Amino acid sequence: MKRRRFEMACPLPLQQYPHVLAAHGGGGKLMHQLLETICGEGFSNPILDVRHDSAQLNVPPGRLAFTTDSYVVHPLFFPGGDIGSMAIHGTVNDLAMSGARPLYLSAAFIIEEGLPMETLWRVVQSMRAAADQCGVQIVTGDTKVVDKGKGDGLFINTAGIGVIETPLMIAPRSVRAGDAVLVSGDLGRHGMAIMAGREGLRFESDIESDSEPVHEMVLDLLAAKIDVHCLRDATRGGLASALNEIAEAAGVRIGIVDAHVPVQENVRAACEMLGLNPLTVANEGRFVAFVAQPDAEPALKILRRHGGGAAAAMIGRVESATEPLVTVKSALGISRILDMPAGEQLPRIC
Amino acid sequence: MKRRRFEMACPLPLQQYPHVLAAHGGGGKLMHQLLETICGEGFSNPILDVRHDSAQLNVPPGRLAFTTDSYVVHPLFFPGGDIGSMAIHGTVNDLAMSGARPLYLSAAFIIEEGLPMETLWRVVQSMRAAADQCGVQIVTGDTKVVDKGKGDGLFINTAGIGVIETPLMIAPRSVRAGDAVLVSGDLGRHGMAIMAGREGLRFESDIESDSEPVHEMVLDLLAAKIDVHCLRDATRGGLASALNEIAEAAGVRIGIVDAHVPVQENVRAACEMLGLNPLTVANEGRFVAFVAQPDAEPALKILRRHGGGAAAAMIGRVESATEPLVTVKSALGISRILDMPAGEQLPRIC
Repeated sequence: MKRRRFEMACPLPLQQYPHVLAAHGGGGKLMHQLLETICGEGFSNPILDVRHDSAQLNVPPGRLAFTTDSYVVHPLFFPGGDIGSMAIHGTVNDLAMSGARPLYLSAAFIIEEGLPMETLWRVVQSMRAAADQCGVQIVTGDTKVVDKGKGDGLFINTAGIGVIETPLMIAPRSVRAGDAVLVSGDLGRHGMAIMAGREGLRFESDIESDSEPVHEMVLDLLAAKIDVHCLRDATRGGLASALNEIAEAAGVRIGIVDAHVPVQENVRAACEMLGLNPLTVANEGRFVAFVAQPDAEPALKILRRHGGGAAAAMIGRVESATEPLVTVKSALGISRILDMPAGEQLPRIC
Repeated sequence: MKRRRFEMACPLPLQQYPHVLAAHGGGGKLMHQLLETICGEGFSNPILDVRHDSAQLNVPPGRLAFTTDSYVVHPLFFPGGDIGSMAIHGTVNDLAMSGARPLYLSAAFIIEEGLPMETLWRVVQSMRAAADQCGVQIVTGDTKVVDKGKGDGLFINTAGIGVIETPLMIAPRSVRAGDAVLVSGDLGRHGMAIMAGREGLRFESDIESDSEPVHEMVLDLLAAKIDVHCLRDATRGGLASALNEIAEAAGVRIGIVDAHVPVQENVRAACEMLGLNPLTVANEGRFVAFVAQPDAEPALKILRRHGGGAAAAMIGRVESATEPLVTVKSALGISRILDMPAGEQLPRIC
């Protein structure tokens, strides 16, 4: 993994344009100056440098994965990440959930007039560093500026293309009764880090977001011929939404054991303090894997070799292929239904 | 071209949820209900219906084109189109500018809390109709909701993938001295239609946006073996920005003749009234084509066979391959420099 230092000076003279102006989105000289400097130099690579309306790509043969996500996280910078790194990780991870090797990303900015130019540059640098780390290129983009009061600093959309090299069909319909349900690491850190950053809360020990790319974990599982049936990242709505989505789409019943779900002590304490259930808190670098039962242990060994996977665990089983339902067994041995959260726990978490 | 009527009733009970709530972006039950109904039923197709984090595609062999654009147009509905149809046309057209056949689109919504649900449904229906007309499928998407006052009703991002079947390298670097410069139709209607819609101006005769897909024009040019060197849609910044971008990227001097640029009489009058230059006004269904001079006439015949191409015209020539410059010759025979607009004429035109 290549890492690039965040030390490049902003190529646009900040004393001349300390803030983004409406004209930076107008299609004229100022917009071109912004694109050539901030985006052009920040993201520079041979495909982007062609400067055409669409990027031209050579993609290796195979099925392709294609995904998109907008990022509206507030605040823009939080412990363990920022909107830029998240916009790369999130879309890379969505591709990984199809078993794809991420290749190319687009980056589209909706900027509120008045955003400090230096903030934009920091975010672009963070995106570049994250993209380099993930081995993906940002090959096409767009910038729009909206009037003050009609946005919130910065929204980013990234779309991504990856190539699916595995012959496995990694999708909800491949989930079978008897499958082991694994999580790739400890849960709840991203949501609680944002919460702390936004509300100015300080928990006993600082909680850092789990935002990170997971595609190498997934590609390692596939390279080791683990019989992966389905993958789902546990983002908005947390583990509870991820499991319920799969149960619904696959038409299966899933049972998990509460005590087996890895949650850091400081996250658990912060959730208790705020009356939140860690199973419904958002993550940005964690996923659920449904694998054939005999492959559960070898899969966990692979996950645990990666940074974020130290706490990877088997948390339950797919129980039957009839009614879509998720249950969680408490420490006292009592099973209850684990529902999707009804509404909004933590707005603008991603 | 298939057209789908806008007559499907909204599948989400509007009396229960007349407006989009923050919880519709929260990852829980309300969000899933919104996605299953408005997006799921509105865009339904076999790839999207798999309901996975990323779409899995089979793409024919060839180079791929990949592009993205966000749409923040205000107002959402305007004479001749709306943000939904525009979000399809704009991205289809960006793909066409690489000579690609558009295949797959993503759709990502950033919704301001409080948007009438019916507005969202109208936009989704309009996107579906436009996608059907263009022969593309919306295969993956995302929905975020931001708090009231932190957005402006609705922003849309679409990214697109197309396949490049032509062996031509359609890009600025293929432009040569002597090339003919063509425009695909009359200019300036989109910008003036938005302006009228926004300011409540009523011009003598109503001006409708030129928003429309141009990929079939381009594919027809390529099928007829027209020697196309470069294509560029004349969106933000209008013809002036498109020509200057190409002059800069290709390192050429371009000369056009003002009287040869097709502009409808009502558009010209409205521009005069508002002190705008039609050459800098945005279009959403018009492009500039650089073709080998002997192919100019056959190319124009092909363009004129299409709806928006009735006024297609040769407007000038690439003059030399040295200093990047665009000049425009007036009716009196005097040449002046046609610069990119400096700043912002008409904010949020696209």
